[in-house]
Amino acid sequence: MKIGVIGATGHAGSKLYEEAKARGHAVTAIVRNAQKAQDMLGADAQILERDAFALTKADLTAFDVVIDGFAVGRFSGLGYLHVDLAAKLIHELRGTDKPRIFFLLGASSLKTASGRFLIEDLRNSPNSDKWIDVPEQQYREYLFLQLITDVNWVAVSPAGNFIPGDKSAYIRGTDQLLADSNGESILTTGNYAVAILDEIENPQVKQGRFTVNNK
Amino acid sequence: MKIGVIGATGHAGSKLYEEAKARGHAVTAIVRNAQKAQDMLGADAQILERDAFALTKADLTAFDVVIDGFAVGRFSGLGYLHVDLAAKLIHELRGTDKPRIFFLLGASSLKTASGRFLIEDLRNSPNSDKWIDVPEQQYREYLFLQLITDVNWVAVSPAGNFIPGDKSAYIRGTDQLLADSNGESILTTGNYAVAILDEIENPQVKQGRFTVNNK
Repeated sequence: MKIGVIGATGHAGSKLYEEAKARGHAVTAIVRNAQKAQDMLGADAQILERDAFALTKADLTAFDVVIDGFAVGRFSGLGYLHVDLAAKLIHELRGTDKPRIFFLLGASSLKTASGRFLIEDLRNSPNSDKWIDVPEQQYREYLFLQLITDVNWVAVSPAGNFIPGDKSAYIRGTDQLLADSNGESILTTGNYAVAILDEIENPQVKQGRFTVNNK
Repeated sequence: MKIGVIGATGHAGSKLYEEAKARGHAVTAIVRNAQKAQDMLGADAQILERDAFALTKADLTAFDVVIDGFAVGRFSGLGYLHVDLAAKLIHELRGTDKPRIFFLLGASSLKTASGRFLIEDLRNSPNSDKWIDVPEQQYREYLFLQLITDVNWVAVSPAGNFIPGDKSAYIRGTDQLLADSNGESILTTGNYAVAILDEIENPQVKQGRFTVNNK
């Protein structure tokens, strides 16, 4: 399939790019800096050099699947761009069925064992004002997506602890924080990429969200 | 004050333009067709000819107040543009306090005496699939706005029956459908314009919504 990855030089995006390429998909890195992408993904990497907010409907509909792996710095104060880019991409794709578009959320919109959204616990954590911006806006991004019924979207939430690492084995769920065999909410970027490529190749979710955890 | 009105050639927008001008404000009609606006508002009308989706941050921050009176045809199937334009304008204004921006919603996000949102009753009305699009998307527009905490926005809902007509006297509330002295949920565009200009001159609401009904 033709797959475009926004933010393909990020932790999750680069693993997604590699996994898609390894499976033989025609994958394109959608990045602001082509040189940086080539240094990271290889001189032969297929690249569309574009600010994500400048992507046109024609850019997007050239793909079967688009993955919005856009991310801002944890302390940048720009968390709202997660919401705004989702709204921009949705606007370009209103009334379409293709591409199928994946939005990579954080874990903040998942529910904990207590039945609350994780964001509620995060807000009450010590010094959360220092780092709550991105989880808060990614939570709102999911609330926004739930208002959209005319675009072929899927959202994906990782575990509470989302770390760089290779693939091993994963489990998936819908709206609850999961745990591995040690009781830990943890996911490697490698397992995340495998789970998302599995969903791309074997679609199970439409206009909804799934979550992934290490097995 | 410098006031920009998006959709100033519409039923509500034209009354807002007139009321603002009559009160001595420097009001600008933001419209796609300057000639149509001049025909309606007068040859001396101050006009910014611009598609609302092409408005820049510089365009918007030139005003003290912007009123988003954008509207699509009831049967156009383009109701989602209400949500998308709100998201676009919010994106341009992230982190600003000026302009104060007014979003003109419908009544669908108000609550009825039964405690339900009006949209729920509308969905259950006969043949609602023919005309539910705009009320549905204006309901979602308000849900979207409630996710925004870093822009100086206000939303306004008219009564269930919103009709062209002159100003007389009005009452206002917050989230409940109101009624006039005959028990009717009804509002003229003239009273709507007066209520909004009163709120502009004497701000009472920030990041929230008020509703207006004929007295």
